[in-house]
Amino acid sequence: MKKVVTLGEIMLRLSTIEDTRMAESQVFAADYGGGEANVAVSLANYGHQVAFASKVPQNPLGQAVKQHLRKYGVDTRFLLEGGERLGTYYLETGVGLRSSNVVYDRKYSSFAMMTELEWQLDDLLGETELLLLSGITPALSDSWRQLTLTLAKAAKERGITVVLDVNYRGKLWSVADCGTFVREMANWVDVLSAGRLDALNFFKVPEVAGASLDYYYEEIQKGYPNIKTFYSTTRKVIDANHNFLLGNLYTEGILYQSVNYDIQQIVDRVGGGDAYTGGILHGLLTGMSPQETVDFAALASAMKHTFHGDHNQLSATEISEMLKNGVKEIKR
Amino acid sequence: MKKVVTLGEIMLRLSTIEDTRMAESQVFAADYGGGEANVAVSLANYGHQVAFASKVPQNPLGQAVKQHLRKYGVDTRFLLEGGERLGTYYLETGVGLRSSNVVYDRKYSSFAMMTELEWQLDDLLGETELLLLSGITPALSDSWRQLTLTLAKAAKERGITVVLDVNYRGKLWSVADCGTFVREMANWVDVLSAGRLDALNFFKVPEVAGASLDYYYEEIQKGYPNIKTFYSTTRKVIDANHNFLLGNLYTEGILYQSVNYDIQQIVDRVGGGDAYTGGILHGLLTGMSPQETVDFAALASAMKHTFHGDHNQLSATEISEMLKNGVKEIKR
Amino acid sequence: MKKVVTLGEIMLRLSTIEDTRMAESQVFAADYGGGEANVAVSLANYGHQVAFASKVPQNPLGQAVKQHLRKYGVDTRFLLEGGERLGTYYLETGVGLRSSNVVYDRKYSSFAMMTELEWQLDDLLGETELLLLSGITPALSDSWRQLTLTLAKAAKERGITVVLDVNYRGKLWSVADCGTFVREMANWVDVLSAGRLDALNFFKVPEVAGASLDYYYEEIQKGYPNIKTFYSTTRKVIDANHNFLLGNLYTEGILYQSVNYDIQQIVDRVGGGDAYTGGILHGLLTGMSPQETVDFAALASAMKHTFHGDHNQLSATEISEMLKNGVKEIKR
Amino acid sequence: MKKVVTLGEIMLRLSTIEDTRMAESQVFAADYGGGEANVAVSLANYGHQVAFASKVPQNPLGQAVKQHLRKYGVDTRFLLEGGERLGTYYLETGVGLRSSNVVYDRKYSSFAMMTELEWQLDDLLGETELLLLSGITPALSDSWRQLTLTLAKAAKERGITVVLDVNYRGKLWSVADCGTFVREMANWVDVLSAGRLDALNFFKVPEVAGASLDYYYEEIQKGYPNIKTFYSTTRKVIDANHNFLLGNLYTEGILYQSVNYDIQQIVDRVGGGDAYTGGILHGLLTGMSPQETVDFAALASAMKHTFHGDHNQLSATEISEMLKNGVKEIKR
Amino acid sequence: MKKVVTLGEIMLRLSTIEDTRMAESQVFAADYGGGEANVAVSLANYGHQVAFASKVPQNPLGQAVKQHLRKYGVDTRFLLEGGERLGTYYLETGVGLRSSNVVYDRKYSSFAMMTELEWQLDDLLGETELLLLSGITPALSDSWRQLTLTLAKAAKERGITVVLDVNYRGKLWSVADCGTFVREMANWVDVLSAGRLDALNFFKVPEVAGASLDYYYEEIQKGYPNIKTFYSTTRKVIDANHNFLLGNLYTEGILYQSVNYDIQQIVDRVGGGDAYTGGILHGLLTGMSPQETVDFAALASAMKHTFHGDHNQLSATEISEMLKNGVKEIKR
Amino acid sequence: MKKVVTLGEIMLRLSTIEDTRMAESQVFAADYGGGEANVAVSLANYGHQVAFASKVPQNPLGQAVKQHLRKYGVDTRFLLEGGERLGTYYLETGVGLRSSNVVYDRKYSSFAMMTELEWQLDDLLGETELLLLSGITPALSDSWRQLTLTLAKAAKERGITVVLDVNYRGKLWSVADCGTFVREMANWVDVLSAGRLDALNFFKVPEVAGASLDYYYEEIQKGYPNIKTFYSTTRKVIDANHNFLLGNLYTEGILYQSVNYDIQQIVDRVGGGDAYTGGILHGLLTGMSPQETVDFAALASAMKHTFHGDHNQLSATEISEMLKNGVKEIKR
Repeated sequence: MKKVVTLGEIMLRLSTIEDTRMAESQVFAADYGGGEANVAVSLANYGHQVAFASKVPQNPLGQAVKQHLRKYGVDTRFLLEGGERLGTYYLETGVGLRSSNVVYDRKYSSFAMMTELEWQLDDLLGETELLLLSGITPALSDSWRQLTLTLAKAAKERGITVVLDVNYRGKLWSVADCGTFVREMANWVDVLSAGRLDALNFFKVPEVAGASLDYYYEEIQKGYPNIKTFYSTTRKVIDANHNFLLGNLYTEGILYQSVNYDIQQIVDRVGGGDAYTGGILHGLLTGMSPQETVDFAALASAMKHTFHGDHNQLSATEISEMLKNGVKEIKR
Repeated sequence: MKKVVTLGEIMLRLSTIEDTRMAESQVFAADYGGGEANVAVSLANYGHQVAFASKVPQNPLGQAVKQHLRKYGVDTRFLLEGGERLGTYYLETGVGLRSSNVVYDRKYSSFAMMTELEWQLDDLLGETELLLLSGITPALSDSWRQLTLTLAKAAKERGITVVLDVNYRGKLWSVADCGTFVREMANWVDVLSAGRLDALNFFKVPEVAGASLDYYYEEIQKGYPNIKTFYSTTRKVIDANHNFLLGNLYTEGILYQSVNYDIQQIVDRVGGGDAYTGGILHGLLTGMSPQETVDFAALASAMKHTFHGDHNQLSATEISEMLKNGVKEIKR
Repeated sequence: MKKVVTLGEIMLRLSTIEDTRMAESQVFAADYGGGEANVAVSLANYGHQVAFASKVPQNPLGQAVKQHLRKYGVDTRFLLEGGERLGTYYLETGVGLRSSNVVYDRKYSSFAMMTELEWQLDDLLGETELLLLSGITPALSDSWRQLTLTLAKAAKERGITVVLDVNYRGKLWSVADCGTFVREMANWVDVLSAGRLDALNFFKVPEVAGASLDYYYEEIQKGYPNIKTFYSTTRKVIDANHNFLLGNLYTEGILYQSVNYDIQQIVDRVGGGDAYTGGILHGLLTGMSPQETVDFAALASAMKHTFHGDHNQLSATEISEMLKNGVKEIKR
Repeated sequence: MKKVVTLGEIMLRLSTIEDTRMAESQVFAADYGGGEANVAVSLANYGHQVAFASKVPQNPLGQAVKQHLRKYGVDTRFLLEGGERLGTYYLETGVGLRSSNVVYDRKYSSFAMMTELEWQLDDLLGETELLLLSGITPALSDSWRQLTLTLAKAAKERGITVVLDVNYRGKLWSVADCGTFVREMANWVDVLSAGRLDALNFFKVPEVAGASLDYYYEEIQKGYPNIKTFYSTTRKVIDANHNFLLGNLYTEGILYQSVNYDIQQIVDRVGGGDAYTGGILHGLLTGMSPQETVDFAALASAMKHTFHGDHNQLSATEISEMLKNGVKEIKR
Repeated sequence: MKKVVTLGEIMLRLSTIEDTRMAESQVFAADYGGGEANVAVSLANYGHQVAFASKVPQNPLGQAVKQHLRKYGVDTRFLLEGGERLGTYYLETGVGLRSSNVVYDRKYSSFAMMTELEWQLDDLLGETELLLLSGITPALSDSWRQLTLTLAKAAKERGITVVLDVNYRGKLWSVADCGTFVREMANWVDVLSAGRLDALNFFKVPEVAGASLDYYYEEIQKGYPNIKTFYSTTRKVIDANHNFLLGNLYTEGILYQSVNYDIQQIVDRVGGGDAYTGGILHGLLTGMSPQETVDFAALASAMKHTFHGDHNQLSATEISEMLKNGVKEIKR
Repeated sequence: MKKVVTLGEIMLRLSTIEDTRMAESQVFAADYGGGEANVAVSLANYGHQVAFASKVPQNPLGQAVKQHLRKYGVDTRFLLEGGERLGTYYLETGVGLRSSNVVYDRKYSSFAMMTELEWQLDDLLGETELLLLSGITPALSDSWRQLTLTLAKAAKERGITVVLDVNYRGKLWSVADCGTFVREMANWVDVLSAGRLDALNFFKVPEVAGASLDYYYEEIQKGYPNIKTFYSTTRKVIDANHNFLLGNLYTEGILYQSVNYDIQQIVDRVGGGDAYTGGILHGLLTGMSPQETVDFAALASAMKHTFHGDHNQLSATEISEMLKNGVKEIKR
């Protein structure tokens, strides 16, 4: 079995508990996560051989990152140790009318300060089937903008499927900078996670009132015929505990959609999108049909909202059974 | 005042807390309960003299069972000590879309391994008004299948009201075995807790599309005219925290029903059925009208969903006041 | 900047946690609050210079009160030390169908036992713009009935805006006694917090079927033309976690109303009314328009329901931003 | 088997946890206890039939008291319901150099406000072997001073063994008042818990430098030959977690003493003296030799220091085994 | 690098927290451990390639075992899934004078019920340098007695170093049965963990008053010249939180001893012996001198007492630095 | 009353709880503190008018700092808002043989990045009696080295008492750099917190075997006759929970010393030195005798070890009473 590689930053999340405001908190819950790492955990849970590449400081927090990944069977060979600090963010967990709020403290991290690719590319990308990158990494520095492109090209040359999750973060860079990067990067991408807003903002697709999502994907594809697959979720926020969520997957000219989940008791929505990506990639890697794939991914994402922590905690078997049986009584 | 006796297994429940999955749990909440014990607690809360008969090991967990029962005023004279272990089960408490999940570890327990009735029947059943048994006990072993019948006959001979809660557990025995037992047992039963599925599966009542519940009870009663009263709840599961619940009571040819409770914030639904049974028996024992009885029982059951732990924690006065006043403002 | 003074009792609240019933609780959460103190905290959060006047015992619980107030920037110059005990109340925090329940243990407190005004009135009321009193204080004793009137008159003489929050507590005095007091007190009041029931019960306004709230305010104003402004909230209780809340403000013959908030995840509703008062007074003190004022106050009140503890924890800026932007996605 | 009766106040203890100071505490641990109630629990644990007589309010806190007592098998027939409030005290749990600190809030309690004996004395004292009273009860009010004497005399007349635990509380009454009471009360007492200071202060025994404890007991006995047995502990405080404790028992002219326990890890010392009393009474009631009695009582008291909560949690079997085997390895 | 294999049972430990007695516990802390698994974690922490062989049920508790081992880098290839249940034990954590107490609930576990070696021996023992077995495994059943011998012989034939930790458990088998087994087993053992009592009881070495430990090892070695190395700890229990601990290592006729650690604040002593074994094996595998080995192992064991959980959590570097620097100030 | 000013960095401390290692921690306790801020809290507790000058980011963590200081009555007028982040450090709380361990994450903080004095010196130093600075501030940057000297000179010119706490942090700068700074700074200092090692390393006092502390202070004073007062503590570490602590104060040629406290149950030793400084400054500011001062300061420091959090929580009255009465029984 060839391996999957995901590469990006992993951070310490310090979140409030018991509905306390951040300034009043006497304890914070500590979790380790990041988009690409969360996808790696999902895929490992589904039985794939997956490695996560990043860099963490050589201290107990870096050690905690390593233990977190190993626990779920993620390969940590490419988790470098060095640099000054682990990126951190504080999360005031929302409740009802009060939205969640993030305070970033991620600057100057070991990963963000990297200026060259410290892995041997032949090790990192050898025997690899798929490489996942995101739009967060190039937002960290000019160096990372360049290195991300280098990685994508190197993967492409080796025939590896390149996946990009745009994941725009307004606190890290401008729409203009992100657009410039994404439009160049897209030339090496096979699978793209992007939605309507990404199409408008970064790919400059002209807005058409009332147009469905396939219009936007079609338009992007005109410029980038190399992109074979697009995916995204459509989320409607009622309040911090109540969302609707629906999965989209576009391939070979057809838009596939899941049911629209009514998620009434959100425990933790951080990582909901990553769980969706994990499901989509699982479908692609195991040859599920597009409809099966989007159904699997959407349920994985909906279920992620019922756990504390950034990563999906379900096996492929559990998700498949739920797809078949729906919400059930206690089994006893 | 004559006493009530309930007899069955009581277990240690180890449940996850704070929305954690079972495999991730670093702590489990410990509670002691079981259908027949929970009914005993309800009745004691309502002021009845009630004894719970069972067997627990002579160790601190057995001691905890005893203290749990005494705390609520349940008579523990018939709680035997001996055997190897206390039956245990692990509960992953569901949240929203994620259902609760039970992992049983109850085999080889002190109670399940009993092969004869270790109580003096004249003590156990003397001065007794009502005996509650359930379909879980005979599911534990061939011995218990036999002993349950013995108990029912002995009670019947003494003029005691015999109540059977079918409570089918698919993880413990087959539909066929349960049916064989129930059909024999039913000859000694005065009050039966069973629903439409029980009628179909165990009493082989022919299904009639769209038929209301009274049809099924009527059919059972044809074969067992000794059964004077039937009861059950109708539950509709929206998700793990949101259920609808309605109580049914059938007696003298009439089906009485409560309002349909919309329970939007379920804390712990384990024991919801037992709280209903407790309410029904309280009505029978105190001579409430059938409508009063089903109203009382359904509210007791609905309220049980708002506490952690297996047993009802309300007094009869509290329930009666709520029936009168409905959901209210804070009183201050 | 002139100061605001609020005067009343502050108590220790001991509330159940984790959905436990009061009799089962092995821990209680400790919070310090009271209507007038909570308004003081709100106003301090909004940048006003505000002092809270009360009396607490000279022990660690009194010290805790002082630290609580100072933390939010409330002036504690008029917080007297002495007497025997701090008023206390126990709160069983409701969940779903189970309402919250309060057990008062506030008799004989340092504040309730006061028989004269122990402050120098020239200090207390000097350089003061607004004085907030409530109907709880006169309910504590005959002395306090007299002293409250004395305070109102002294404030009036100094040209201070006098605000009265009727806040009727049925466990403390009768409707008749409250009415007698309120009708006398109203002569010195500029701003009155009262609703339809207060109009009927205490001001003896004749009920008119289907009449809107402005009718009642108009009727009161006929007898008390000195009252320029009336305010209240209209709350509809679905269950202990789910309420609707709408703000009313009546001034210069017009009734202004906020949107009707659908609060689906109530964490703690104690202090919701005080947060509303805080918002109204902030609007009055800063010259907001009536519609801005009622909008601000209603959102402050709705948001209060999402925190544990009696007092509003939002700044004026946070509330204003939410008014503009509504419920939002996580910002990151 | 005849019953034992203990009579006195039971309170809610609200104690700080996790080494927090009282004014900083956001939670308090809730426990129910009082000297006479704690002795009742000890004796019930040892298999005696024991009733606790007191009065608590008819609210959830009163209900909690009842459940607490029933859990350990104490008879609650004589636990009256009524009055305004449950006596409360706040405990800042000491650690190391920082001593524990108590803030009483017990005035005006249901028990303290009693002005007559609300039990039928023939019920209360019928079929009774031993009655335990303490010096705390008469300290609560003039009424209780009188009623305590009434109880002692009534017991004496019925041939019941009367035990008095002096338990002087400086915050409740003066040395002089206590002395007056104790000297009258002592005429009806068979067993007295008192130490050297009690002899000096209340019985006015002349101090003799270097005299051992038997001198003081002998002197008291000269005035009160009816007192057959005296007992006390000698405690040396190193710090809040480290004490030495030794038990004394004086009977038939001989002073018996236990080993001096070096208690290095005190979890909770409240109730240490009551556990000692429980052990002494158990020895008296079961006819142990004086040396066996003092050994049993001293170990019970030392072990109490290793649990949270006011009451001893060990059975007589556990204590006897520890006496035989001493501190041991983990058994597995 | 060749691998190390440890084989045995791994259990769920449910331990009391916050000094609560077992019967009073409302929560239990959940940890996964067992002697051989704990040694595997230690060795993985020290950088060795180590596999743990066992069998766990296919349920969330079995999944938790797997995640626990992977987190620390232990190879779980030989962790079989199947059978009925995970062995469990309850631990009342001792404090001060109160010793820890274990209640076993380990019968009928997936591992204990094994009747044949379900691994391919060539996989299990291929490329293996050292095999660790213990005296707990053969105590579980007659089958395991036989299978343990089979494993030892198979290892011996492959030139693998066989280590036996006698680890006698009186609750599982008799001294006689253990002796019979150990005396046969010893023929295939290279390294033996045993102390003076093991020598007397199982190897029937004649007691010599005042003889030092080397005498006993010498005597065993006379009968089993194949055993080249012996090790043990000498522990003196002051109370549950205060122990002295010293390490012994005997090889080539010389007894090496560590300093005697004064451990005054024991957090959790379960696994202290396994941490010692881990240190000894690390010394053997890396060619440390005997004195270095015993020093390393004794400190690893002493430090284990300062963590909650069964396994050592220190790296080899951390232990080596502590050996050099001793207990230190906070470094900042 | 003139005010006291302390100036320096305040950080968020994230510490492990319940004896967990840092890499295993799922929660961290959050506290706000720093040497100069902790002294400010001490002095405010003792009734002084004290302001703390620093800079924190304009986010909820900065808000938490402000609330922390206000709670204890510290003036926050000079707490600037701005910059990128709040300095942070992680503390693995030691237990027994395992020492505490600090991981700094304080670089790039709002305070550390300051390059000029952003306060109006006339505001900051006007009406000021005493200014406390420490050797941590100049260790943060070259700018701060210069600004610290500027502050000291400006204070000196205004006749303000300048106190310097050397507080050498090896992780922040070299011994050589610290020495260069301290030797220049010392020219403007009136009161110096330094010990023997500081004298040797920074003031290059020649070592004299066996010399007492006064020798070193005398030698420093020869070069800096402006320094009138020296103070320090002598700490002996037995293990992480057990230290001895003794206070030193040197003035007018005499060394005053407190008793040597045997602190057996350390809860949190961070801030122990700051509590000592707080006590010394309180003595200086209120004109206590040197012996009274050192006694007060040493007890304040010893007591600080019994609380969680960085700052002293005792009032001057509490400390004085303890000095008089020593460790006592529970008072009740």
